[in-house]
Amino acid sequence: MLSVNVALGDRSYPIHIGAGLLDRADLTLPYLKSRRSVIVTNEVVAPLYLERFERALCSAGATTRSIVLPDGEAYKDWPTLNRIFDGLLSGLADRGTTLIALGGGVIGDMTGFAAATYQRGVPFIQVPTTVLAQVDSSVGGKTAINHPLGKNMIGAFHQPRMVLADTETLNTLPDRELRAGLAEIIKYGLIRDAGFLGWLEANVEALLTRQQHALTHAIERSCCNKAEVVEADETEQGERALLNLGHTFGHAIEAGLGYGIWLHGEAVAAGMVMAADLSHRLGWIASDDVKRIQQLLRRVGLPVAGPELGADRYLELMRHDKKVADGQLRLVLLQGIGKAVVTAAASDAQIRATIDDCCDHG
Amino acid sequence: MLSVNVALGDRSYPIHIGAGLLDRADLTLPYLKSRRSVIVTNEVVAPLYLERFERALCSAGATTRSIVLPDGEAYKDWPTLNRIFDGLLSGLADRGTTLIALGGGVIGDMTGFAAATYQRGVPFIQVPTTVLAQVDSSVGGKTAINHPLGKNMIGAFHQPRMVLADTETLNTLPDRELRAGLAEIIKYGLIRDAGFLGWLEANVEALLTRQQHALTHAIERSCCNKAEVVEADETEQGERALLNLGHTFGHAIEAGLGYGIWLHGEAVAAGMVMAADLSHRLGWIASDDVKRIQQLLRRVGLPVAGPELGADRYLELMRHDKKVADGQLRLVLLQGIGKAVVTAAASDAQIRATIDDCCDHG
Repeated sequence: MLSVNVALGDRSYPIHIGAGLLDRADLTLPYLKSRRSVIVTNEVVAPLYLERFERALCSAGATTRSIVLPDGEAYKDWPTLNRIFDGLLSGLADRGTTLIALGGGVIGDMTGFAAATYQRGVPFIQVPTTVLAQVDSSVGGKTAINHPLGKNMIGAFHQPRMVLADTETLNTLPDRELRAGLAEIIKYGLIRDAGFLGWLEANVEALLTRQQHALTHAIERSCCNKAEVVEADETEQGERALLNLGHTFGHAIEAGLGYGIWLHGEAVAAGMVMAADLSHRLGWIASDDVKRIQQLLRRVGLPVAGPELGADRYLELMRHDKKVADGQLRLVLLQGIGKAVVTAAASDAQIRATIDDCCDHG
Repeated sequence: MLSVNVALGDRSYPIHIGAGLLDRADLTLPYLKSRRSVIVTNEVVAPLYLERFERALCSAGATTRSIVLPDGEAYKDWPTLNRIFDGLLSGLADRGTTLIALGGGVIGDMTGFAAATYQRGVPFIQVPTTVLAQVDSSVGGKTAINHPLGKNMIGAFHQPRMVLADTETLNTLPDRELRAGLAEIIKYGLIRDAGFLGWLEANVEALLTRQQHALTHAIERSCCNKAEVVEADETEQGERALLNLGHTFGHAIEAGLGYGIWLHGEAVAAGMVMAADLSHRLGWIASDDVKRIQQLLRRVGLPVAGPELGADRYLELMRHDKKVADGQLRLVLLQGIGKAVVTAAASDAQIRATIDDCCDHG
């Protein structure tokens, strides 16, 4: 087991990473405010892990109830969130009840937002079961639901009390989701950890064949990088925006196709290629750097081009992104491998050229 | 003009109280994050004050848009909140846009919650136009919407950047709402300011006839008391719960009758009598203290008894209140005039006796 501490003063918390941690109730119990907890999960994860996780907690003396939601990004919405509130209010959960998110990013984001807003805030714990959730969405306290006019538009910053990442849960993850999760891992190498990017290039096969040791290392490195960024800028006033490399393009892809057609990580992969292309267009990185990024993503089996939506549609969707400030589109771009910046340096014409060159034309 | 500072570190803010402040854009402008603002108000307040307030802001160089919601507690719900999000997302409001709540407690609570959760938090300003909002709901950062199973069950702590209380807006307030607002003012005297309670007894008529000087003083004293409590306990871990004197009974009344039948302040008035009766039952205050409270509330024209719902129903509704901890019902009771405590000392039997004695029996 490896552990990472997220140092945020009185909101600090540990991330535990390793095989078989679901059974380790001794790790979870100290972080329950009272002995009462409500586990929120979905219809895919519940049959795999809910009973086992509940049994461990109950054996250790906690009481648990569970709320099982439908699976998928399409359900990251108000009506589904409201099913959590209905459950909490019907079960007489009070402000001492701890919510536990058992699942991927959607479950984590929704449960976190429910915890942020139920009775103006109750404690919660993240038990992420996907690569994406283990390296990104479960860490840092961003919670949200989608709105028909934009992804993650309604949310809150609400830090978990603890994150428990059982790498064995990744054994049941569909291959496509494993690959999509690796996009976010690669992102950490690109934005701030060139050494880690080299390690990833040397260990792609070990990760794709789910070797526990490689997964644990990659997740720990990712969480370390994310923790450092979040510690420097908890509420995304500045540096934290660097974590969004590829995300403004990626959000446009997801929204343009309709959420759920491409996985988030797939959209981010294509978005990172676009960001790299644009960075090269600005003269900030070499064309070999762009090729290196494309090559790694290809080896992982990720897309290296966006779908053909047209530059107008891309730009329209990108302007709905939260990083628009004073009407000016700001993007995360690369000044080198391992060095990302938030910038408004790219002109509309340059962004259009990148979109035209980095999209599949039928 | 009187001003009260709410000292909460980097979330500190001023409350300005006085006649004609809606026209004082110089007070508001420094608290807009950018020049862009969206005013949220309702169909009753908009025709009275929106144009005037917008004109003042625009003359001073700000740009404003407005969202006008239906009026009433019945609309303090998700679908109405979502109209704010729809407006913000359609108008391309970004994280630099400041939301301004112009109206009573419902508008303030909903706009505050929208500001707390829109893109994970944007700044907001409170411009309360009712007594209740000026002395209570606009101060302290509590924001929320109702859920069918409970009042204010979904919300967040999100402090405003500034509160602008124009006492002249109270001239258009219906008499019943003025009286209901006075219940919350009397509450401050009961929980922590016996001297202020004496002043209120001497100035009831001046307040009921809306003498600006008396209103300004009463609002300033109330905000001072509330600010001190909020400063000591921003997120209601302890002392802040004292502000809920009469509210657990009151919420049961509001929920039991259906929200909107009794005004919040009316329910709180009857609830404060119940809390006083229960305090007397515990031997903590004299029967003369209870009579003194009833007399003041009667002079204001407020109810001094609850509706007949039956003790079982009261207790059931009270257990949904947020102050239930570990299944134990905790109430705010009086150990004297000006001295409230949060306590689980009252038995179910004693609470039932109070409900039986303090309700109108047909």
